[in-house]
Amino acid sequence: MSTFELKNTSEISRKGTLSLPHGEIETPFFMPIATKGAVKTMSSKDMKDLGAQILLSNTYHLLLRPGLEQMKQLGGLHKFMNWQGPILTDSGGYQVFSLSKTNKTTEDGVTFRSHINGDKVHLTPELSMQMQSAIGADIVMQFDDVAAGNSTRERYEEAMERSLRWAKRCKESVDPSQKLFGIIQGGTHEDLRKRSAEGLIDIGFDGYAIGGLSVGESREDAYRITKAICKILPEDKPRYFMGGGMPEEIVYYASVGVDMFDCVLPTRNARHGTLFVWDEGEGVFSNEKFYSQIRITNTEYAIDDSPIDPHCTCETCQNYSRAYVRHLFRVNEVLAKKLTTVHNLHFYMKLMKGLRG
Amino acid sequence: MSTFELKNTSEISRKGTLSLPHGEIETPFFMPIATKGAVKTMSSKDMKDLGAQILLSNTYHLLLRPGLEQMKQLGGLHKFMNWQGPILTDSGGYQVFSLSKTNKTTEDGVTFRSHINGDKVHLTPELSMQMQSAIGADIVMQFDDVAAGNSTRERYEEAMERSLRWAKRCKESVDPSQKLFGIIQGGTHEDLRKRSAEGLIDIGFDGYAIGGLSVGESREDAYRITKAICKILPEDKPRYFMGGGMPEEIVYYASVGVDMFDCVLPTRNARHGTLFVWDEGEGVFSNEKFYSQIRITNTEYAIDDSPIDPHCTCETCQNYSRAYVRHLFRVNEVLAKKLTTVHNLHFYMKLMKGLRG
Repeated sequence: MSTFELKNTSEISRKGTLSLPHGEIETPFFMPIATKGAVKTMSSKDMKDLGAQILLSNTYHLLLRPGLEQMKQLGGLHKFMNWQGPILTDSGGYQVFSLSKTNKTTEDGVTFRSHINGDKVHLTPELSMQMQSAIGADIVMQFDDVAAGNSTRERYEEAMERSLRWAKRCKESVDPSQKLFGIIQGGTHEDLRKRSAEGLIDIGFDGYAIGGLSVGESREDAYRITKAICKILPEDKPRYFMGGGMPEEIVYYASVGVDMFDCVLPTRNARHGTLFVWDEGEGVFSNEKFYSQIRITNTEYAIDDSPIDPHCTCETCQNYSRAYVRHLFRVNEVLAKKLTTVHNLHFYMKLMKGLRG
Repeated sequence: MSTFELKNTSEISRKGTLSLPHGEIETPFFMPIATKGAVKTMSSKDMKDLGAQILLSNTYHLLLRPGLEQMKQLGGLHKFMNWQGPILTDSGGYQVFSLSKTNKTTEDGVTFRSHINGDKVHLTPELSMQMQSAIGADIVMQFDDVAAGNSTRERYEEAMERSLRWAKRCKESVDPSQKLFGIIQGGTHEDLRKRSAEGLIDIGFDGYAIGGLSVGESREDAYRITKAICKILPEDKPRYFMGGGMPEEIVYYASVGVDMFDCVLPTRNARHGTLFVWDEGEGVFSNEKFYSQIRITNTEYAIDDSPIDPHCTCETCQNYSRAYVRHLFRVNEVLAKKLTTVHNLHFYMKLMKGLRG
């Protein structure tokens, strides 16, 4: 039985279904980020009410707290956070690179100091697989070597080739009940990306992710690389663009054949009061500009009793005004962040629904 | 038509109904505190789901932000926070005393500097009534002069007598659509309390509040004063114990005839991880010890997959474990505070339901 069933490919997206241990979900989809076992400000019930199909969580954070043995004893993340739907976990590769000041990469793995208490931790492909097994994610990501955004070609090549070797070790040690995705690296070098993709296809994975983009490169480079990669990836496996992006970027990536997305943007922007509003109606998008962003903390909203977005059907827009949300930010009530998180995630959910046609 | 209908007085409580512009509610009741227009971490929908009958908000905070003119333009607090039930507002007297470092009391009112930006504000009985009218609360409290917890008898007497004069000014300036409560002052001096209560009864109010307790005096003093006051208050008016208290204190005060309560304890304790658990079952109370408090952040709960309170029927206990709530505190997820706020307020709601028989 195939995990991924592609039903229809159009100029807009690849419409399909992905069958996972915790449910069948529709592509293309967006994964809200529950880094430490909760989407910030949101309970698992809130995420269900929002219509999220799948959540993303992080091996790195959960390895530090609650820890591997504790996660085993807790019976995995689904039970821990009381979420019945699918979960994807990132492998920790990116977080080791972005969050730990001191890290040393060898062929075996990465040694780093915990950003919480400075404890020395050695993370390897095998340990990442073991932790992701303890978490019990439906989809697990390979542990990869992530080159910084402005690296030399030599460093991109080294990281890409090491990631390939680690991909193999991940495949050899993965919990067979989980779906394992390989991660394509190679910076903005098309030839390196091609070698990376082909190497991963040779090993064979349940899906393929495009990593190492959305890290400061130009949008043109990201579009070019993603389009080129999608052309050589097998049609019958899901493709995942990691860490992106803005709504119009998602529209573009879906149009060239990406099926899965995750991004901190809707939730992080929400917590800072930057909110998405539809220009022409909920779920109405095009390749042109179809939304705006408003700063809800601006004085202009002080006595504005209209909802954040008059087009929006989210819980927040159905019940609360711009003036109230602005007030909550001004008086430091965390409810502000919850209400805006609901709104921005709802925007992304409606965008994805639109992309599914 | 009488506002308050007393249906049954027992050794446990005075069971009755209070008819207010935004609904009829049952006594005795507890008012969760929405200081700045939101119960911390909770939306008005959350409060409705919790079964809260009435919320308490603060004139002082809302006067500073959003402000008097803005509140008028916003159409009042019910519309602003989308809460359909009754609201009681405190007058600002206590907050002027407790939150403003520099304040000067004259016969006219209190001049203080905003704790937010240092702006000079002059709050009078008339301005307090005007602001509470803009808020549109169902029940408004008189503006009072609040003596500190360890004042001399002279200061208590002065504050009590000034509060009486201010009570009169409040009655003369109150919005007639609102129910005005007088506040009994006089520290732990029974004779001063008696004069205060009699003075207020002479003026005539829709209800009577006991102020200036729960400020550091012994529990015996608070019990003695409250019992003595309740004996001289008219039976047909609701009595409100301001700012208290622990569950067993509420049980006591209800038994001597108090009808209304508010306290930061359940919500503040929740946000600090101190949680109420029933000893013998949800809503089972007595004059003896009937509950415990647990510190959910303790290591002993690290892999405890039982709910906070096995007896409890709140949303949190129905869905999440002690281990998960503890984890959320450890990784600084604000969801922790929301889940515990739901739990502790539910405890108080069930206690009040028990007291209503």
